[in-house]
Amino acid sequence: MASHDCDAGHKETHGGDSEREFHAAPEDLEERRVLFAAIDSFHQYRATSHYNVTHRRRQNLYALPSSQWQILAAPPFSLLGTLSQVDDAIDQNANLADAIVSFATTTIGLPASPAKDHPLNWRNTAKPSDHAKAHSTLRQFYRDWSAEGFALEVKPLLDLILNDLHNHLHLPQSSSPSPPPSLLLPGAGLSRLLLALTLAGYHCTGNEISYHALLASNYILNHTRVAHAHTVFPFCTTFTNLASRSSQLRSYTVPDVHPATAFQEAHERGDAVGEMGMAAGDFVTSFGPRDADSAGAYDGVVSAYFIDTAPNLIRYIETIRHCLRPGGVWVNVGPLLWHFDGRGHQRSGEDGAEEDGAGAAELEKEMDRKRRKAQHMAREDAGIGEPGSFELSNEEVLLLVESYGFEILCHEILPADFVGEGSGGSYIQDRQSMMQSRYQNAHWVARKRSESARKDHQ
Amino acid sequence: MASHDCDAGHKETHGGDSEREFHAAPEDLEERRVLFAAIDSFHQYRATSHYNVTHRRRQNLYALPSSQWQILAAPPFSLLGTLSQVDDAIDQNANLADAIVSFATTTIGLPASPAKDHPLNWRNTAKPSDHAKAHSTLRQFYRDWSAEGFALEVKPLLDLILNDLHNHLHLPQSSSPSPPPSLLLPGAGLSRLLLALTLAGYHCTGNEISYHALLASNYILNHTRVAHAHTVFPFCTTFTNLASRSSQLRSYTVPDVHPATAFQEAHERGDAVGEMGMAAGDFVTSFGPRDADSAGAYDGVVSAYFIDTAPNLIRYIETIRHCLRPGGVWVNVGPLLWHFDGRGHQRSGEDGAEEDGAGAAELEKEMDRKRRKAQHMAREDAGIGEPGSFELSNEEVLLLVESYGFEILCHEILPADFVGEGSGGSYIQDRQSMMQSRYQNAHWVARKRSESARKDHQ
Repeated sequence: MASHDCDAGHKETHGGDSEREFHAAPEDLEERRVLFAAIDSFHQYRATSHYNVTHRRRQNLYALPSSQWQILAAPPFSLLGTLSQVDDAIDQNANLADAIVSFATTTIGLPASPAKDHPLNWRNTAKPSDHAKAHSTLRQFYRDWSAEGFALEVKPLLDLILNDLHNHLHLPQSSSPSPPPSLLLPGAGLSRLLLALTLAGYHCTGNEISYHALLASNYILNHTRVAHAHTVFPFCTTFTNLASRSSQLRSYTVPDVHPATAFQEAHERGDAVGEMGMAAGDFVTSFGPRDADSAGAYDGVVSAYFIDTAPNLIRYIETIRHCLRPGGVWVNVGPLLWHFDGRGHQRSGEDGAEEDGAGAAELEKEMDRKRRKAQHMAREDAGIGEPGSFELSNEEVLLLVESYGFEILCHEILPADFVGEGSGGSYIQDRQSMMQSRYQNAHWVARKRSESARKDHQ
Repeated sequence: MASHDCDAGHKETHGGDSEREFHAAPEDLEERRVLFAAIDSFHQYRATSHYNVTHRRRQNLYALPSSQWQILAAPPFSLLGTLSQVDDAIDQNANLADAIVSFATTTIGLPASPAKDHPLNWRNTAKPSDHAKAHSTLRQFYRDWSAEGFALEVKPLLDLILNDLHNHLHLPQSSSPSPPPSLLLPGAGLSRLLLALTLAGYHCTGNEISYHALLASNYILNHTRVAHAHTVFPFCTTFTNLASRSSQLRSYTVPDVHPATAFQEAHERGDAVGEMGMAAGDFVTSFGPRDADSAGAYDGVVSAYFIDTAPNLIRYIETIRHCLRPGGVWVNVGPLLWHFDGRGHQRSGEDGAEEDGAGAAELEKEMDRKRRKAQHMAREDAGIGEPGSFELSNEEVLLLVESYGFEILCHEILPADFVGEGSGGSYIQDRQSMMQSRYQNAHWVARKRSESARKDHQ
């Protein structure tokens, strides 16, 4: 099991000071605060959701003239019945949140119900941004770990990536003693692509900075006992753009694949699977030029929905160039929702007011990602905390990648998959909603030039 | 010209206390504050945009290591050049904003540059929500008053509505002395549908609550001298999901149609055109059951992108039933982005955290509409200020409309128009963006039952 146990990761020995582990509470007090707030936000999911989603709507309903709310409470509307069903759905989501908390506190050695003055009291530490991230992480289980969400949103990306790897990073013949190519996946999130590429035969290292994602993926990879152990209701808190009420209460079971069972079955079939690891922390500080161990350590980097998390894309490119071997391959797919877009204080508070219709969707995702990363903004020492930011068009991204020592092997803008299963441009999208959003993802493959080739090129 | 001059409107004599006029500063101090803040937000558009859009991005660029920003400032990236081009584009938008301010202050009789202690000092009264609304109103000129935006976003709705009216509210033969059917358009916004339906021959009354929209539509209807008088750059402040930098700097001329010229040309051709008026104020308080003058006054109501602005849809339905004659027709098209969704305080601040991917776009529009209406929330006397709210699915909306005295003549969910010009489901959408959002609009036609038919039905 060690080959795919993620709760330590092979990066343990690198000792980067921003790396995150789960064997004990972090010594660093700021790091500890961020971890505790993430755990607490999962713990509070049940109470905050009941309050914000159903309690307030009951209050709003009862605030109507009584003759009106009585009509709305009776069939065929039965709005109070709907709110009770939403409460039940929230409870199912909260059961998964509680399982993550229980796993985290047990693994880290935290008291489940700490006294107020306990030095490891993690309760009531979550801020609004943490609550928001707990909500979005639970919804992300639909995308990454339900059969339906995976098929619509992740598998198209996986197929694209596997095809690129097949073309540019061949797996050894099964009879060969050669090790398989090694891949680095920054922004690994809930680790579904990480698992899939490992099962496909690659040695895979994930990297992730968010404790919310790390806690959730740790739980799903290492602690669920069977497939379909949990039921999630990803759309239960959405009351807008419903064609039919039944859309709101659709449920999905997770995980669709039990990771340990999948590895065991692969071994029994004699399939060659890779090794899987996870390195927690800031991508640039963990794998960048200052980390000598990473130099040339990977045959490939797969960045899916990742590069637009960069305040400074040059740092990401330098880091990827650093940890790829000469000739190594970088596969990229995703949007350009620069989540540090125009970072800094807005004078008049019209955050997002200048966004266009498409930008509206982008804005909320940006806000979400900002929340996810905001914890790091204050520590402007390195990585995404370094000052400065800029936003490029896709054409400019390709030029920048080329100018920093890569050859672009192919590039395209994927069409939006509005009809059918398509190209992986949707992100936790209710396909029954009266509002549909899609990314037309940038997809490209680049190869790291050797230093001499780079100089020739310049 | 009186037949289509909107700056008074035939509702003047109704005297509803929430109605809004533009001949003088409102006596009501709260009303005056809201008007002044709207004017000031257009006035400040230039300065706030330069600060928030380009100044901050220059700061972020210069905060990078100098070797890096120098690369990004040089070709082929030329990011400082891009920011200068965006500044020029902002100035073009600001010229339109200034024209609206100049028109408003002149018409209302406000000093252009009031002293600080002047009783009509409207300067520096805008709040962040006002700035946001000024931004979105200027972008809305693309949707409603450019040839390109109109063709993509408004004309599909107009064609649908004209077809419904053709089927259910016949225009008289040109030789007939009968007046044309009278239509009421709540949520008239920038008045483009209002103008188009008037030119098509209907007597049309618009209703709008937002001073931002009222000032903008007043300007475009009554004060522009020629078509294509202004140039707008609706996407110039969006730095995300750009395939190519040139997308960001696309410009459009407005208005594509000069209203007075269009009326004159119609008269010269002998086309029968209707009369056009605008009633400013809350829809329910202006046209609801308490307003005796409205009783049975209209042959048709056209609600486009409107019904989801209701905190209490029953009030809207009662109002429409009140002002339609028996047998009158209600044409509806639009999404269900309930903009009072879960109104009230959220305990943990995770506003929108529970939204799904589609909901992200909805959220920002909801926030925008909330800003637009927030000014009224405090005055819980009537209209949208009345306490309480609820959100229905489209199926439930149809049941509620039926149960309040309407017969549903036809209904459908329009497919999203991702390819081609389609069905009018996009809203200020940059068609070149790597992010595309579409509504699958609800479209239905209902007929007001007579009281006896209603009782038979119940």
